Amino acid sequence: MAKFVYFFGGTKADGFGEMKDLLGGKGANLAEMTNLGIPVPPGFTITTEVCIYYYQHNKNYPDTLKAEILENIRKIEEITGKKFGSSDNPLLFSVRSGARASMPGMMDTILNLGLNDEAVKGLAKLSGNERFAYDSYRRFIQMYGNVVKSIDSDKLEHPLEEIKEKRGVKLDTDLTSEDLKNLVNTLKKKYKEVTGETFPQSPEKQLWEAIGAVFRSWNNQRAITYRKLNNIPDEWGTAVNVQSMVFGNIGDDSATGVAFTRDPATGDKKFFGEFLINAQGEDVVAGIRTPNPINESSKNNENKDLPTLEALMPKCYKELVNIYNKLENHYKDMQDIEFTIERDKLWMLQTRNGKRTANAAIKIAVNMVKEELITKNQAIMRIQTSQIDQLLHPMLDPKADKNIVARGLPASPGAASGKIVFSADEAEELAAKGEKVILVRIETSPEDIHGMNAAEGILTARGGMTSHAAVVARGMGKCCVSGCSTLLIDYKIGTMKIDNKIYKKGDFITLDGTGGFVIDGLVPTIQPEFTGEFGEFMKWVDDIRVLGVRANADTPIDAKIARKFGAEGIGLCRTEHMFFQEDRILAVREMMLSETKKDREKALAKIKPYQKEDFKGIFKEMDGLPVTIRLLDPPLHEFLPKEPNEMKQVAKSMGTTVEKIKELAEQLHEFNPMLGHRGCRLGITYPEIYEMQVRAIIEAACECAKEGFFVYPEIMIPLVGISSELEVLKTMTIATAEDVMSKTGRKVEYKIGTMIELPRAAIIADKIAESAQFFSFGTNDLTQTTFGFSRDDAGKFLKEYVEKKLLPKDPFVTLDVEGVGKLIEMAVLKGRATRDDLKVGICGEHGGDPESIAFCHKIKLNYVSCSPYRVPIARLAAAQSVISSS
Amino acid sequence: MAKFVYFFGGTKADGFGEMKDLLGGKGANLAEMTNLGIPVPPGFTITTEVCIYYYQHNKNYPDTLKAEILENIRKIEEITGKKFGSSDNPLLFSVRSGARASMPGMMDTILNLGLNDEAVKGLAKLSGNERFAYDSYRRFIQMYGNVVKSIDSDKLEHPLEEIKEKRGVKLDTDLTSEDLKNLVNTLKKKYKEVTGETFPQSPEKQLWEAIGAVFRSWNNQRAITYRKLNNIPDEWGTAVNVQSMVFGNIGDDSATGVAFTRDPATGDKKFFGEFLINAQGEDVVAGIRTPNPINESSKNNENKDLPTLEALMPKCYKELVNIYNKLENHYKDMQDIEFTIERDKLWMLQTRNGKRTANAAIKIAVNMVKEELITKNQAIMRIQTSQIDQLLHPMLDPKADKNIVARGLPASPGAASGKIVFSADEAEELAAKGEKVILVRIETSPEDIHGMNAAEGILTARGGMTSHAAVVARGMGKCCVSGCSTLLIDYKIGTMKIDNKIYKKGDFITLDGTGGFVIDGLVPTIQPEFTGEFGEFMKWVDDIRVLGVRANADTPIDAKIARKFGAEGIGLCRTEHMFFQEDRILAVREMMLSETKKDREKALAKIKPYQKEDFKGIFKEMDGLPVTIRLLDPPLHEFLPKEPNEMKQVAKSMGTTVEKIKELAEQLHEFNPMLGHRGCRLGITYPEIYEMQVRAIIEAACECAKEGFFVYPEIMIPLVGISSELEVLKTMTIATAEDVMSKTGRKVEYKIGTMIELPRAAIIADKIAESAQFFSFGTNDLTQTTFGFSRDDAGKFLKEYVEKKLLPKDPFVTLDVEGVGKLIEMAVLKGRATRDDLKVGICGEHGGDPESIAFCHKIKLNYVSCSPYRVPIARLAAAQSVISSS
Repeated sequence: MAKFVYFFGGTKADGFGEMKDLLGGKGANLAEMTNLGIPVPPGFTITTEVCIYYYQHNKNYPDTLKAEILENIRKIEEITGKKFGSSDNPLLFSVRSGARASMPGMMDTILNLGLNDEAVKGLAKLSGNERFAYDSYRRFIQMYGNVVKSIDSDKLEHPLEEIKEKRGVKLDTDLTSEDLKNLVNTLKKKYKEVTGETFPQSPEKQLWEAIGAVFRSWNNQRAITYRKLNNIPDEWGTAVNVQSMVFGNIGDDSATGVAFTRDPATGDKKFFGEFLINAQGEDVVAGIRTPNPINESSKNNENKDLPTLEALMPKCYKELVNIYNKLENHYKDMQDIEFTIERDKLWMLQTRNGKRTANAAIKIAVNMVKEELITKNQAIMRIQTSQIDQLLHPMLDPKADKNIVARGLPASPGAASGKIVFSADEAEELAAKGEKVILVRIETSPEDIHGMNAAEGILTARGGMTSHAAVVARGMGKCCVSGCSTLLIDYKIGTMKIDNKIYKKGDFITLDGTGGFVIDGLVPTIQPEFTGEFGEFMKWVDDIRVLGVRANADTPIDAKIARKFGAEGIGLCRTEHMFFQEDRILAVREMMLSETKKDREKALAKIKPYQKEDFKGIFKEMDGLPVTIRLLDPPLHEFLPKEPNEMKQVAKSMGTTVEKIKELAEQLHEFNPMLGHRGCRLGITYPEIYEMQVRAIIEAACECAKEGFFVYPEIMIPLVGISSELEVLKTMTIATAEDVMSKTGRKVEYKIGTMIELPRAAIIADKIAESAQFFSFGTNDLTQTTFGFSRDDAGKFLKEYVEKKLLPKDPFVTLDVEGVGKLIEMAVLKGRATRDDLKVGICGEHGGDPESIAFCHKIKLNYVSCSPYRVPIARLAAAQSVISSS
Repeated sequence: MAKFVYFFGGTKADGFGEMKDLLGGKGANLAEMTNLGIPVPPGFTITTEVCIYYYQHNKNYPDTLKAEILENIRKIEEITGKKFGSSDNPLLFSVRSGARASMPGMMDTILNLGLNDEAVKGLAKLSGNERFAYDSYRRFIQMYGNVVKSIDSDKLEHPLEEIKEKRGVKLDTDLTSEDLKNLVNTLKKKYKEVTGETFPQSPEKQLWEAIGAVFRSWNNQRAITYRKLNNIPDEWGTAVNVQSMVFGNIGDDSATGVAFTRDPATGDKKFFGEFLINAQGEDVVAGIRTPNPINESSKNNENKDLPTLEALMPKCYKELVNIYNKLENHYKDMQDIEFTIERDKLWMLQTRNGKRTANAAIKIAVNMVKEELITKNQAIMRIQTSQIDQLLHPMLDPKADKNIVARGLPASPGAASGKIVFSADEAEELAAKGEKVILVRIETSPEDIHGMNAAEGILTARGGMTSHAAVVARGMGKCCVSGCSTLLIDYKIGTMKIDNKIYKKGDFITLDGTGGFVIDGLVPTIQPEFTGEFGEFMKWVDDIRVLGVRANADTPIDAKIARKFGAEGIGLCRTEHMFFQEDRILAVREMMLSETKKDREKALAKIKPYQKEDFKGIFKEMDGLPVTIRLLDPPLHEFLPKEPNEMKQVAKSMGTTVEKIKELAEQLHEFNPMLGHRGCRLGITYPEIYEMQVRAIIEAACECAKEGFFVYPEIMIPLVGISSELEVLKTMTIATAEDVMSKTGRKVEYKIGTMIELPRAAIIADKIAESAQFFSFGTNDLTQTTFGFSRDDAGKFLKEYVEKKLLPKDPFVTLDVEGVGKLIEMAVLKGRATRDDLKVGICGEHGGDPESIAFCHKIKLNYVSCSPYRVPIARLAAAQSVISSS
């Protein structure tokens, strides 16, 4: 018989830390902590298999589940001495979700379950605190009504506000137990009014309803969005943790808090946390009150005057320090822990690997290697490639003038400028139009997640370093300033007031998430430097990886950045990008529109000096490294004049009429330009174009060599599908190169190769390799032709395909291993069968995608080439591929 | 040492008939005839290897060639008793081309070689005919000047015309030997004037120059065009035949002629030929004089009053009959023979398999099987698929009114109407604009070949059944009326006069090549019937072939034709073609432009009855045979209204504005429609479209079944590239079909399959076959995506690719076996590995191309599907594939 429920409590648990797939992260860690002898309130975990079963069986449970749960409740009753459903000594539960991967705040939780009209009296008696008991009951009714019955939370919050108003008090804590009793009655009435049922008095019924509600919350909109953003499969499901309640809000000898074993923003090795006296956990996370620091090193601008846990409850603090050391040593990673102190007794409610900024992740990993906690390989596997991406984002220029108008918490580092918006929907709307926006909220909640994703940065008036806004922003790698209490936000009229200045929707502000500053207007940004721990880490990465990493760069500037980011050469230099520059496009247009070879050669002669200078600049930047230059690729008509004044200009320059230009341009029209007269097909029909380009490349190379640079040009013929295309163009290239070299009296080494970007090229790769010295997979085009959809047009259905799971991922982002990958693999094998030293790389955008890089490693490519900004990511992904495939 | 020269003469030859590759067709047959004891003037053949060597070695010859040729000349001298270069008893040669495949009139010939100022005197003495000797000399100078020195033939003809004018005579034969002596002098002067050299007196020099000229004529423009039209590889090269001259023009006891062992127009078993007394062979072929019939059965309207060879030279005629019987029995095929009678002695100059009309080819093949000359398999291999094509061309409607304005020879059967043009260039120009033209010429020459190819039919005023026009037209399968002597053509003013009616360029006429009639204006045509020998032949074809043959048919009318032509089902019924009909397009446009599912369903409801009726019509026509119906394939915007009045109509019908319609239409614009939102992608995003179509198909099937028809619908999902696409749409199709069948209370068998037309589909065919019950290769699209060029746009470079030999053939016509074929083969193997009874066919246009069909047979497809008119061709190609692969 399958086991669906795992017990934890006392000093032994049924499960353990490795069982995350079955028990979820939270459940597995509760079991592990229990086994480590750490005080954990007893409870049990209903496995993710039950969730899967639940969805596969029309929201029904396995037959044996009920008996298992009852037995586990009995065990808890035994340990705690309390009784579920008892009115004298009631056992209360928290019911929480817990998936394999952390999805903070995305799913539902119910606390204080087991309370009813009788048990509340027992709780009052037992705690000697009637106010607390009725406050717990009213919270339970609110949560239950909202989570189980989907009653709008405002509706259930409203009676509380009403009673506070009526009583003329501001804080919940100012209400008396009588007030709370009345509130409970009002809420129960409200509950009946909305649901048509009386509030359930049977704890067992409450429990089953709550379990179902948590399972259902796996598929609420926020959770689905979060999973999509974080690549978490929908099939995983969540576990449910039913745990006996401990109360941080039972009096001033009670507290609740969260802590990190190292600083999640900087990675510094210091114990760091926040807590609230006489509060439930939710109060800390929601960021409603500014929490106290747990120790001196957790103090910041906002909380520096509040007493620390160390000062207030030294025994508990000491125990907490012991536990955190034990946990970090056990898990060998920075932990994010939740604790509750009930009447001076410390309980641990959660431990998990803490989310951290990219900088912190690097620092922690490097430090842990030095502390001999983990190996270099472990350190490398621990950094997500997306975190490297965050490190590459620009920072505020320190030399720029900054009008700092407010200061908050440095909740998530980096910098961002944009237009102010006050709602998640507005953020999404404007961002969709290509605007950069800063989402400004009093505080954020899981409902705001789509807006946070769309915004460049997040600014909140309330909430600490562990508030929702801070945690989510760090996870997304967005800059965030939280708890900026000088902000006065008015959603209704859409303004934000700082001191006396009023900012409206659409005004520009800049955030510095590293410093916690809000700055007026736009501020210029600069590139980060890659030194210190990052430099050290990337050295380890480079030591282990096998794949080379090159960059796609079209200009000397791009080449310089690429080299700084660690590129070992240029894998794709697109010559046509040079054509679009304003000082050249006229000559290019003349070339395109020439009707005779002679006219075309005249126009080409004007373009050549530009090309040569570009190549020289790139060769110099890449001194000593190979540079793959692709000859003209796109359809001619892409360069054509479209606007009337452009037509006029070309007509004038060519000494003809606008009508004639129009006519010539129309002749170049194509029905499917992607499948048209482009790439080497142009080289075949207008050999003078490629000849000019080869001449410019070899002349540039010879001149650079003369100046003492080491140049390794690799001339790449695009869009070859027929072996004879390459043969003909290779012959032309060699003849031209020899001619240039004999004229300049200088020899340079050069290679001739091709892009494999058509299915046919992959199929006949053995034949093509007879001429090609290297292959570079143009996976953008190869994806288009293999699938038979163009990137431009697939937008209409591709999103729907991914949403409906017809495709696991957008194949233009992550290489389609099943289809396109099969062709690539075939081409590599066939190509190397002909020429065993064939150099093979990839230069489509997949070259910067970690999953695709793992595939490239697996099929033994020589290198990947990606945009300069993705070079460090590719380096890491390449190293991780080595480790995970060994 | 390689042997480059092969002797023939007396009763033994070095070579034999099977050596066509090395000796060319003419050389091999001269050798074979010699070996058979047939009188052939002695000579030798310089092999095709020498031609290949000549082109590979910058027009030089192998070292040993000279010695070989001299030795062979000595052998001829021995047999003939004449001496090459002698002035007393000169040995004269003809120098002729002779390639592996017959290329009539395409390359150059020189006669009477060996004559010079001294030898001509010897010839005069020897023949006792000074006139003949000088006429031979002047012909030789003209031919040599034209062929070796490329002097314009008009320039060399001009002195002859001048002297005729001066002497006031009309015919060459009216000139005296003095006249001819003067003419020889004038020609020699002219020769020197143009070339700067005196006319060569050394026979040996003449011979070498002539051999070189013949080799060079392999690459003249006409020959290149002919090879391209007839798929003859450029690499083959030609042999050169040097043969001792015999003279048909030495007096009235001499003659020359051509004959066929059976009628080349009808296939009737009768000896059939033409000849001219006192003439050289060229005179017959050129069609300048109307030739005599060789016997009674060769008489026609034009020559019925001329005496026959049988009557004039009974001994020679009898010998000729014996020889023709011997040759046909030996070669087991209809022979086209050339003979010369020199002073009552018969010489055979050539035999080859005769060109014939398609009807004749079938009749001859079938008769020869019955005569037990050949086997059925041989008969099948002997018919070219292109000949079947000719049989399928329409004929004049016998019931139509015909105003016959002239009568000529039925030179090549079939019927054609078109606009009159008077030059080959005009024919090409107008045809390029899509006009149908009839080429009208006094007589045709090899220079006219491009115009003949462009024209629908050819009409000449001069020339017999074996004239250039007749032979070439039959080869091309074009209708031709030749020798229509009532025609008065004036090229200068561009008119043709028949009786008193003047026809100008652009006027319409109709030709009946089967009857030899010229008809005023346009005449309606009808389809030929497939009975008699053709029916018998096709039965043999069907007995042997393994591949099934289906048709691509979209309407009941097409289906009817397809069935008549022997289709065994429909392999592709394109549902969208039904959409374009005028009564439906409005509803289709409404569907395309609907913004909501509801509106779309409303529009679809209007279309469904039409679709259902079409399907019913097709099912009934194909009673008992499978019908593969492809669901909607092309991009939506193809159906959109483009003209303002179309927009207005749709706007009105949809109750909206033209502006709105414009806007909606623009939203559907795609950059690369071929790679856009089409095929099953539409079925995924708008399931209601496919659902309507499935409903229409199954309802139609159920209703037909109720009426007693046997229906086998096969529903084909187009453009699948991802296995989930097919899975989702299969589920929808089954659900819809089940629903229809449960509602109608009738079950029909149906299959669900897919088109494999994307490279990815071929790659994952094993996975796709899990859902698909059949595959049909859409090779048009598959070719586009595999090569990465679209058919619409490739026109700009594909022609150049084929011309420059970058590609052997247009891959949209003949399947690219190396690339696309590899994918198809992979898909067949993978698909059958999953599902061993997977039915696999091809429905691209390649399904009607014989070379592609051979490939389909080789990789064991179940069937090919092609346009109805190509069904018989496909049947034959399928049978030939069996024979040639066994």
